[in-house]
Amino acid sequence: MSPVIGFDADDTLWHCENHFAHAQEQFMQLLAPYRPKNIALEQLYETEKHNMRLYGYGVKGFVLSMIETAVDVTDGRMHGHDIKRIIELGRDILDQKLELIDGARPVLETLANSHRLLLITKGDLLDQEAKIARSGLGGLFTGIEIVSEKDAGAYSRLLAEHGVPPEQFVMVGNSLRSDILPVLSLGGRGIHIPYRITAPHEQVSDEDLDGLALLRADDIRDVPHLIRRLEA
Amino acid sequence: MSPVIGFDADDTLWHCENHFAHAQEQFMQLLAPYRPKNIALEQLYETEKHNMRLYGYGVKGFVLSMIETAVDVTDGRMHGHDIKRIIELGRDILDQKLELIDGARPVLETLANSHRLLLITKGDLLDQEAKIARSGLGGLFTGIEIVSEKDAGAYSRLLAEHGVPPEQFVMVGNSLRSDILPVLSLGGRGIHIPYRITAPHEQVSDEDLDGLALLRADDIRDVPHLIRRLEA
Repeated sequence: MSPVIGFDADDTLWHCENHFAHAQEQFMQLLAPYRPKNIALEQLYETEKHNMRLYGYGVKGFVLSMIETAVDVTDGRMHGHDIKRIIELGRDILDQKLELIDGARPVLETLANSHRLLLITKGDLLDQEAKIARSGLGGLFTGIEIVSEKDAGAYSRLLAEHGVPPEQFVMVGNSLRSDILPVLSLGGRGIHIPYRITAPHEQVSDEDLDGLALLRADDIRDVPHLIRRLEA
Repeated sequence: MSPVIGFDADDTLWHCENHFAHAQEQFMQLLAPYRPKNIALEQLYETEKHNMRLYGYGVKGFVLSMIETAVDVTDGRMHGHDIKRIIELGRDILDQKLELIDGARPVLETLANSHRLLLITKGDLLDQEAKIARSGLGGLFTGIEIVSEKDAGAYSRLLAEHGVPPEQFVMVGNSLRSDILPVLSLGGRGIHIPYRITAPHEQVSDEDLDGLALLRADDIRDVPHLIRRLEA
């Protein structure tokens, strides 16, 4: 039976993490004149991690964590106009021109002829909806799901809603932690396409991957071939 | 045929807007020593309205708009520690103890015995999920939908997904703009239960209501009776 194929969106179908990385560079430049008392980027990661429970993933929480970090590492000395620059860094990410990953559209168009495709993404609801709309890819999917966390529970619920047994499901994405490991744990399969940057909260240690039957692709254009191999 | 009943969540099933109102009061107190050059609350509404396209509804966008407004009306003079207090105001809302509206639980329990109930709410995904979980009411609904905007298009899509013809649908909520008017425009019916505070972006002028067949209740405990009247 033909598998149902799930696709992650950010950094799998379109570029995203590069915008966060660019904002972080600008953030460090804004901080530099204040000679912050800590290495700000590490403190930012800590603050983000601490706030995750309340803010979840997405740009708005990232901006709030940058502002909080900036106040902390400058002992409140950062000028309001620089705080506002941080807000603008976030607005630039939200208002970015969407840039598809090379090959994403033709690969989806090919697979959509023969397979049911699901888009499964996490982050701020409105932001994700806006990116899906701008991508022009929404019509290729039989289902689009925006969730607050991509763990085994979330996949299990989604697959049940779409009537897909896990063993008939293949997830394609750049994050081992969010796209691949939870799906494997349910008995599904995964195709990992690393992106050149991995967000700190998505990192996974090598030991967690020992003995796992995941496929790896360097390029989304390899996915149809790998799917055929899984079907053979 | 028994109608399917949709319920809004914030300020219909549990208190919400009072937390925003409290945060706004605290925000004004934080600003007072800086003698802001504008009436800050009006400027805050303007900033929120302007940011709505990118931030959507919810606490995180509200906090970002408060910070932006604070910087603007103090010409950047607000101290970092006061900026951080604004962030904490938002965190307090997100971390609030959930307080159900009196009567919400027994009314839902009664109606769930005889009707399909849908929960339809908007705002930050994670925050809404957390509130639904804390409410303990989730199990009473046959469907839970968190959307970025409650307009006619969103209701139309949701009703189609749940196989509910609009004329068989009754929506119950505190916001004329988000809960009642779009449903009436599709041919559905609405029961409006005003909350004692209406957010600026939810306000509707009286002319928009002329000639519309909506029912009004002062208390959620009147809803079962009004549903029976619609069925008669």
